[in-house]
Amino acid sequence: MTPTRDMLEVFENQFPDRDYTIEITCPEFTSVCPKTGQPDFGTLVFTYIPDRTCVELKSLKLYLQKFRNEGIFYEHVTNRILDDLVAVLAPRKASLTAHFTPRGGISSRIISEYIRKM
Amino acid sequence: MTPTRDMLEVFENQFPDRDYTIEITCPEFTSVCPKTGQPDFGTLVFTYIPDRTCVELKSLKLYLQKFRNEGIFYEHVTNRILDDLVAVLAPRKASLTAHFTPRGGISSRIISEYIRKM
Amino acid sequence: MTPTRDMLEVFENQFPDRDYTIEITCPEFTSVCPKTGQPDFGTLVFTYIPDRTCVELKSLKLYLQKFRNEGIFYEHVTNRILDDLVAVLAPRKASLTAHFTPRGGISSRIISEYIRKM
Amino acid sequence: MTPTRDMLEVFENQFPDRDYTIEITCPEFTSVCPKTGQPDFGTLVFTYIPDRTCVELKSLKLYLQKFRNEGIFYEHVTNRILDDLVAVLAPRKASLTAHFTPRGGISSRIISEYIRKM
Amino acid sequence: MTPTRDMLEVFENQFPDRDYTIEITCPEFTSVCPKTGQPDFGTLVFTYIPDRTCVELKSLKLYLQKFRNEGIFYEHVTNRILDDLVAVLAPRKASLTAHFTPRGGISSRIISEYIRKM
Amino acid sequence: MTPTRDMLEVFENQFPDRDYTIEITCPEFTSVCPKTGQPDFGTLVFTYIPDRTCVELKSLKLYLQKFRNEGIFYEHVTNRILDDLVAVLAPRKASLTAHFTPRGGISSRIISEYIRKM
Amino acid sequence: MTPTRDMLEVFENQFPDRDYTIEITCPEFTSVCPKTGQPDFGTLVFTYIPDRTCVELKSLKLYLQKFRNEGIFYEHVTNRILDDLVAVLAPRKASLTAHFTPRGGISSRIISEYIRKM
Amino acid sequence: MTPTRDMLEVFENQFPDRDYTIEITCPEFTSVCPKTGQPDFGTLVFTYIPDRTCVELKSLKLYLQKFRNEGIFYEHVTNRILDDLVAVLAPRKASLTAHFTPRGGISSRIISEYIRKM
Amino acid sequence: MTPTRDMLEVFENQFPDRDYTIEITCPEFTSVCPKTGQPDFGTLVFTYIPDRTCVELKSLKLYLQKFRNEGIFYEHVTNRILDDLVAVLAPRKASLTAHFTPRGGISSRIISEYIRKM
Amino acid sequence: MTPTRDMLEVFENQFPDRDYTIEITCPEFTSVCPKTGQPDFGTLVFTYIPDRTCVELKSLKLYLQKFRNEGIFYEHVTNRILDDLVAVLAPRKASLTAHFTPRGGISSRIISEYIRKM
Repeated sequence: MTPTRDMLEVFENQFPDRDYTIEITCPEFTSVCPKTGQPDFGTLVFTYIPDRTCVELKSLKLYLQKFRNEGIFYEHVTNRILDDLVAVLAPRKASLTAHFTPRGGISSRIISEYIRKM
Repeated sequence: MTPTRDMLEVFENQFPDRDYTIEITCPEFTSVCPKTGQPDFGTLVFTYIPDRTCVELKSLKLYLQKFRNEGIFYEHVTNRILDDLVAVLAPRKASLTAHFTPRGGISSRIISEYIRKM
Repeated sequence: MTPTRDMLEVFENQFPDRDYTIEITCPEFTSVCPKTGQPDFGTLVFTYIPDRTCVELKSLKLYLQKFRNEGIFYEHVTNRILDDLVAVLAPRKASLTAHFTPRGGISSRIISEYIRKM
Repeated sequence: MTPTRDMLEVFENQFPDRDYTIEITCPEFTSVCPKTGQPDFGTLVFTYIPDRTCVELKSLKLYLQKFRNEGIFYEHVTNRILDDLVAVLAPRKASLTAHFTPRGGISSRIISEYIRKM
Repeated sequence: MTPTRDMLEVFENQFPDRDYTIEITCPEFTSVCPKTGQPDFGTLVFTYIPDRTCVELKSLKLYLQKFRNEGIFYEHVTNRILDDLVAVLAPRKASLTAHFTPRGGISSRIISEYIRKM
Repeated sequence: MTPTRDMLEVFENQFPDRDYTIEITCPEFTSVCPKTGQPDFGTLVFTYIPDRTCVELKSLKLYLQKFRNEGIFYEHVTNRILDDLVAVLAPRKASLTAHFTPRGGISSRIISEYIRKM
Repeated sequence: MTPTRDMLEVFENQFPDRDYTIEITCPEFTSVCPKTGQPDFGTLVFTYIPDRTCVELKSLKLYLQKFRNEGIFYEHVTNRILDDLVAVLAPRKASLTAHFTPRGGISSRIISEYIRKM
Repeated sequence: MTPTRDMLEVFENQFPDRDYTIEITCPEFTSVCPKTGQPDFGTLVFTYIPDRTCVELKSLKLYLQKFRNEGIFYEHVTNRILDDLVAVLAPRKASLTAHFTPRGGISSRIISEYIRKM
Repeated sequence: MTPTRDMLEVFENQFPDRDYTIEITCPEFTSVCPKTGQPDFGTLVFTYIPDRTCVELKSLKLYLQKFRNEGIFYEHVTNRILDDLVAVLAPRKASLTAHFTPRGGISSRIISEYIRKM
Repeated sequence: MTPTRDMLEVFENQFPDRDYTIEITCPEFTSVCPKTGQPDFGTLVFTYIPDRTCVELKSLKLYLQKFRNEGIFYEHVTNRILDDLVAVLAPRKASLTAHFTPRGGISSRIISEYIRKM
């Protein structure tokens, strides 16, 4: 079963008048390389300024776990998770940084950002 | 007994002509998750530019201890403490960062800021 | 497919006259908690004094990856992997340490050792 | 409600023929100083060689949480928790180290050990 | 004997045509809390762009040592030392950061800045 | 055989509408000093905002390995690798930082940047 | 007023049947060099196995503070504090380690131990 | 023999069209305090954007070694080395940071910068 | 050209009456995997008690550099270098530890020891 | 002027009945390589159990500074300083560890020990 954005639950932001930042760190992310079939491991840091809703942490955990056996490239997984979170939360601002462990002596970090157009 | 802002004592700022910054770090904050009833643990960093008053540290410690058995979400506790401190101190600028320890492999940081309107 | 010890390949130890130590660290181990169905994450350190054979690293990697969707407790997985490696390598001495990331604020380390009887 | 040892659940050790070590780290321990009424904070490390049973981690977490509003000195809490765990587990060997955060510029560590008499 | 700014000696800045920065770190600052009579400990970092004079380090050391038995609050001692140094040096820019060790689980940092008016 | 830019393979960027950053770290770079014939060792960090293509990591690894027996100065190797990557990727922005280990007690870091002209 | 051992208060050890260790760390020790009159700064670590009594931490803090203006050499202060603690506690075993900050580029550590004769 | 700028050798910058940065770290700098005759120890970090020439590292090492028995103050040595390097290299931009080890519990950092006038 | 032990030069130990230890660390070791043709990178630590001779460091560096393009397994290279050094130095005791960087998420350490038979 | 052991001053050990340890760390040692004429840099750690005398720290500092322009190999300087300190102090036990910074990518540590014969 592939992860879909409707797995992400939200709750109401009780401080919508203030711009404040929520940063969520998940050092236990794992997916599968679509080319080699080998597992990849990384740390995700999701940062956002909520508008009307905040993401519920348990649903986020379950959503991220669904990538466990999903074949997907570093660049795609980072942008796709950011897209899903932005679609569900409609935040004022958001970014996702994914840091993947070394393969063949080379490690990667993908940093993707979303800023709401006025 | 729930923590209230009248527990916070202040003393006179003796250098009101200068904008300077006071940063207070409390690595021993604990409250209770309202959903699961389990204790949460975090580190609070409160930073402000005082105007006429500074917060007295012992009263701040006692105020923060009152959250020990209080059921409250991460986002709310961070904004509520900032609101209480701003109400009592009327600072020129203030921010509160709360870093909570991992639950289910996920840790959170809430960063909230106040800037006085001119 | 469950991991079995016949996945582990060996090569001949070319220095059997000397007692020397091989230490292998795998920070990307993951399995599944049989109780909650949630993924567990850990770092394995396997140390041994080879007798006639050494473990081939790529086969060890593939063997460990097979635990990815296996429901198994911390204590069992540690002892089972040690048993498999000892059965295949017949080393003079061996130990396996598994360090699991925190759950509910508690982290665990299991340290298991094998010494060949004379 | 005061914590009692009957809160601690156990499960069967499936490798009783081997002496192996289980180390459990809890950085979120808190109790109350009986003299000042102020909260204390510490990190507990419990290490043991199981005989017939292992401690179930969730029950250990709930047992430790019960000290949250318990007035008890550093030395007593360390020895009492060790006594409770030894009574319930009857381990071959066990130790408990408790590291408490600084008060008045002084921090403390209590290290208590149990070795089964033959 | 209370510390006074005439204890601070200066020497001529030989590079007055260039804006450069001097940063001085003193991790061995100690004074006394005027409320409890207990000693406080901190690290001072003084940074400045010299104009015509630089502070002589030995005289600065002796001046800071004079706070050893002086009863004074965190906020005041930081601003007072900055005022003394600014009065003696007339620097183009200066700042003093004082980081005090934890009391009751809470540590403080005071950051004060001086910018010469044109 | 000297490394050439045609060794670098690319794949299509699937998120060309968004400016996002890819950072690649290679701590295992080695080349040869053209003056002394001695090996040099360094860590490369390549960061870029992709336009239509991303660099394929395995081809990058093989390209960098070709410098192993190449006699080339620090400054040249850094700028040459950046030039090759920019020529192949035509990124919106790119930088290469190379940190070389100490020789004669002195270590070096070269930081080179490319910004696409509009 | 010079520090004397009668300032040290004790309380009854409630676990006299067990050999356990108490380690107390004080990073805020300061005294005065008898030769130069300059303040010295150090960290003390006192470790002991209690017999019938444990040292009360607040009285220990006040006793150590009394060295603040006391002129005494590194070697003497370490052995003298150990002697005072041994005289008051009659522990089964005790040690005191004092680590002093650098003077003229040289730092010192004094490690003194007491073992009760049977 | 006192160090002079004619000891510094240069080589041609092969990438003059690009603004890039070269950072050179020397943790083994030593000179002599002109007041006390005692040796001083520090770490120098020299950063510059080259124009037509780069500094040859071996000649820089030999030049810096000449300060070994030179009596010179922190502030002067930092500005003098920067002046020498700027005179020889005519860089687009340059800075020198010198971090000296503690004396009497106080350490110093001097940060000096050069920007070419257009 | 393959590395041979006659490249290693020695000089006379001037303190043969005393057992003392020499530890040499080389974080810049590289060889080639004979299976994949890919470069391996590691840190070597050689420790020995000299008898009549010590190894000259420059000759050791040149000897180790000869492995740069040599296809050899981790276990073999470690034991072979130890054998070469023991043959040339005839030390009282010696050990070689080689720590190789991760491949496929797995890193290795080989620890080999030599003790002279009496 | 070459350093000689008569530069080392001692003072009376006031606790001769107890075996205690004094550890002295000097991170600012420098001498000259007799082969290349280049300066060497290292950290010395001297540890001893005093008998009737202790070494006076200022005289030790001045003695070590005399190696500044002395051409001497790593192994010799370590053993020579230990010999001088043992000759002057006649300690019950002593050791000297010297850690030298990397040259050509290789760093060294020499560990020499003295135990008094009964």
